[in-house]
Amino acid sequence: MKKIFERILIVALISVLVGVLGCKPTTKQTEKASFKAIELFPEPIRPEGQSDVIELKSEPIDTVRIAIIGLGMRGSQAVYRYSFIEGVKIVAICDVVSKNVESAQKFMQESGLPDADAYTDSTDWKKICERDDIDLIYVCTHWDLHTPIAVYAMEHGKHVALEVPAAITIEECWQLVNTSEKTRKHCMQLENCNYDFFEMATLNMAQHGLFGEIVHCEGAYIHDLRWLNFDEKSGYWNMWRLKHNEKRNGNLYPTHGLGPICHIMNIHRGDKMDYLVSVSSNQFGMTEYAKEKFGSESDYAKMEYKHGDMNTTLVKTQKGKTIMIQHNVTNPRPYSRIHLISGTKGFAQKWPQQGIALEPNGHSFLSKTQLDSLLKVYEHPISKEVGEKAKKVGGHGGMDFVMDYRLIYCLRNGLPLDQDVYDAAEWSAIIELSERSVENQGMPVKIPDFTRGAWEKLKTVTYYTK
Amino acid sequence: MKKIFERILIVALISVLVGVLGCKPTTKQTEKASFKAIELFPEPIRPEGQSDVIELKSEPIDTVRIAIIGLGMRGSQAVYRYSFIEGVKIVAICDVVSKNVESAQKFMQESGLPDADAYTDSTDWKKICERDDIDLIYVCTHWDLHTPIAVYAMEHGKHVALEVPAAITIEECWQLVNTSEKTRKHCMQLENCNYDFFEMATLNMAQHGLFGEIVHCEGAYIHDLRWLNFDEKSGYWNMWRLKHNEKRNGNLYPTHGLGPICHIMNIHRGDKMDYLVSVSSNQFGMTEYAKEKFGSESDYAKMEYKHGDMNTTLVKTQKGKTIMIQHNVTNPRPYSRIHLISGTKGFAQKWPQQGIALEPNGHSFLSKTQLDSLLKVYEHPISKEVGEKAKKVGGHGGMDFVMDYRLIYCLRNGLPLDQDVYDAAEWSAIIELSERSVENQGMPVKIPDFTRGAWEKLKTVTYYTK
Repeated sequence: MKKIFERILIVALISVLVGVLGCKPTTKQTEKASFKAIELFPEPIRPEGQSDVIELKSEPIDTVRIAIIGLGMRGSQAVYRYSFIEGVKIVAICDVVSKNVESAQKFMQESGLPDADAYTDSTDWKKICERDDIDLIYVCTHWDLHTPIAVYAMEHGKHVALEVPAAITIEECWQLVNTSEKTRKHCMQLENCNYDFFEMATLNMAQHGLFGEIVHCEGAYIHDLRWLNFDEKSGYWNMWRLKHNEKRNGNLYPTHGLGPICHIMNIHRGDKMDYLVSVSSNQFGMTEYAKEKFGSESDYAKMEYKHGDMNTTLVKTQKGKTIMIQHNVTNPRPYSRIHLISGTKGFAQKWPQQGIALEPNGHSFLSKTQLDSLLKVYEHPISKEVGEKAKKVGGHGGMDFVMDYRLIYCLRNGLPLDQDVYDAAEWSAIIELSERSVENQGMPVKIPDFTRGAWEKLKTVTYYTK
Repeated sequence: MKKIFERILIVALISVLVGVLGCKPTTKQTEKASFKAIELFPEPIRPEGQSDVIELKSEPIDTVRIAIIGLGMRGSQAVYRYSFIEGVKIVAICDVVSKNVESAQKFMQESGLPDADAYTDSTDWKKICERDDIDLIYVCTHWDLHTPIAVYAMEHGKHVALEVPAAITIEECWQLVNTSEKTRKHCMQLENCNYDFFEMATLNMAQHGLFGEIVHCEGAYIHDLRWLNFDEKSGYWNMWRLKHNEKRNGNLYPTHGLGPICHIMNIHRGDKMDYLVSVSSNQFGMTEYAKEKFGSESDYAKMEYKHGDMNTTLVKTQKGKTIMIQHNVTNPRPYSRIHLISGTKGFAQKWPQQGIALEPNGHSFLSKTQLDSLLKVYEHPISKEVGEKAKKVGGHGGMDFVMDYRLIYCLRNGLPLDQDVYDAAEWSAIIELSERSVENQGMPVKIPDFTRGAWEKLKTVTYYTK
């Protein structure tokens, strides 16, 4: 924290000097920005001999040999889903809870899948990464291990797919970027929400110009997790998620809301996030819940939770668009990722109810029949291809399966992945950036360009096919 | 602008000095706020002999003699509505467009109302304020004249009700506050949206504790006004609204979204707005619309509009609650004021669709039947009293009538008005505060306490009855 305060002081000092020396901005400049977002996290210079991984391709892999690390809520489901995907072989599974490993083994045996090597020691993920018969490390651990495992995996020649958020600090974001750039290995964040049906359809509509110039988007992770966070038996392993709520205040889980929107807005494919401001309410929900569940005198009720119930973050992009992103997991609210797209020709919103409005009747939502018909016409080719199967397999209504399917498809065909390491870094970076803004009364914070200048190389997001 | 930049520099200089002199905050303090919202608008000291007007009452008025100034879209409707309200007499009407005055006169004659004196000169509002047979000046002009007329009216011993926004600068907000405090005259902003049925019901629910501790609220003015702004014939008089879009960038029309929320959150009745951050997208919608309507070479298409399409403003309150408020009048979107209330026990949202969720089932919206039943049980007593008549009279579905009814009811009974001058100042202040934040990349700006310390005198909002 002291370091950050010093950086602010340096920026302030420069501003003062500019003023004292009489180098005042002209009126025109002043109107544009007298005060500028603070660059708390300057972009490190790209190490010599390293280049960007925009559109990174790797050699096609006939059968993708996977190790799944972490078999809790997410990893166990991944094992299940991969049993429906061709061209993969799960060669290793790992969890510190041996019961989770046994369940996965049992499922694999019953499904007629070959046995996978089982690991249960807390540092076994290193051994797995060091093996030479694995192509892809699939990381489903608690948040703190995502980046360490991913970096180690890439350094040992593995592609990596990792659960959201891919990183929990800006430092970790740069580790992912630098390691992927250095090793030329894929690093895909498993942002499943990009593959949900309405999200895919609106991406398709956006790319067909239905919304005109996109001006503003909104996303969120609004999901009442109090019961899970306070469940010692069947909640998060070792209460890890509660611990984040104790220590950090900001948007701790931005990627589900942000991912689909960033692809619709072509972030680092022609535009980029420039700066953000972020404001959190105080914490009310967790204490009230803990008091009711465990009593006023319980440790949980007396605990100080740093994490404010409601976080709202505003992002301005280089091309002048805005993004609003929210996080609330501690108040009773119906689930919502909002998923709102507003352009000069049309409007779409998924929560609390799917609705689309298009010029020349932009003031009215389409009727149910019109909406269904539009969604049919603009169904994303990938949803069309694999959507039915995905719905049968399940996993958040099918989107998890589509995600895995696409990951394997691209690896098998030597195509760039749908989500690259810059997506992972950009979406995850909101966590620490929002924290720094929140603790400084919403001070604008500059968002690092993780592509280091390569954000205009592409003009649009592409989900590649053969 | 230069002045503001200098103020920022002073604050920056102080920060630097604190740093240089070694008076670094402790870690604890640093975490709370290293950087603080800039106080661009310090609160002027209350003039001697002047006191606050919290719960201001005036002598009951048997028949309220009204002058309506401005007979355009809003004023002409007011004349119509007052024909249904007892205990009032419209004694003067005024508009620079003589046709508007004639229409009003004709309507009054046809309705059997006594003739009102007619004024059409651009400075006639002064003459009207100077008369001694008027109790209430009702201001429905374009924005620029709201405060000047209100101040002049109060100085001449009249109560005043004025259309939204009551003021368009912080300086004007203070003029309203100081004049009301000095003259002890009512100054009510005509925020009709506070009286809409769902808003009133949710206020009632909030006051009955249904939402628990309220953590976060949202409001908006999302209303596609492009057609009106660019209509030279039947749009706004002298294109006044377009001119604001040319010159100002921020939330130009915050009160419809903010009013109902501020009452639900007891702003200046136990809590107060502390600081805000505000971010606007660039302008896309007006130019694109003008090009299509008037051609690429038209003056309207070539005009530079400073006003970004989408503004989002975040407010933090003294008690740690947050408010999100949006403004968009230049993109095709279905109408919305959002009206979202999120607390520790429940949730409500009006747009895009009415929904309420309450513990222990906070994750699910009530069914249509449950919702209807709840709205019936918590129908606000005032809606119950006058709602049916209001719906018949009309005016935005009845809320305009309820507003006028309440204003007259309180004046006739010598009761404090539902909305006081501090509401008017607080809600209108967002305009200039958001502008200053927007032009400084979302810099946090301190929100003045217009009550100058009296915000904790009351514990809740009350709509008084005999």
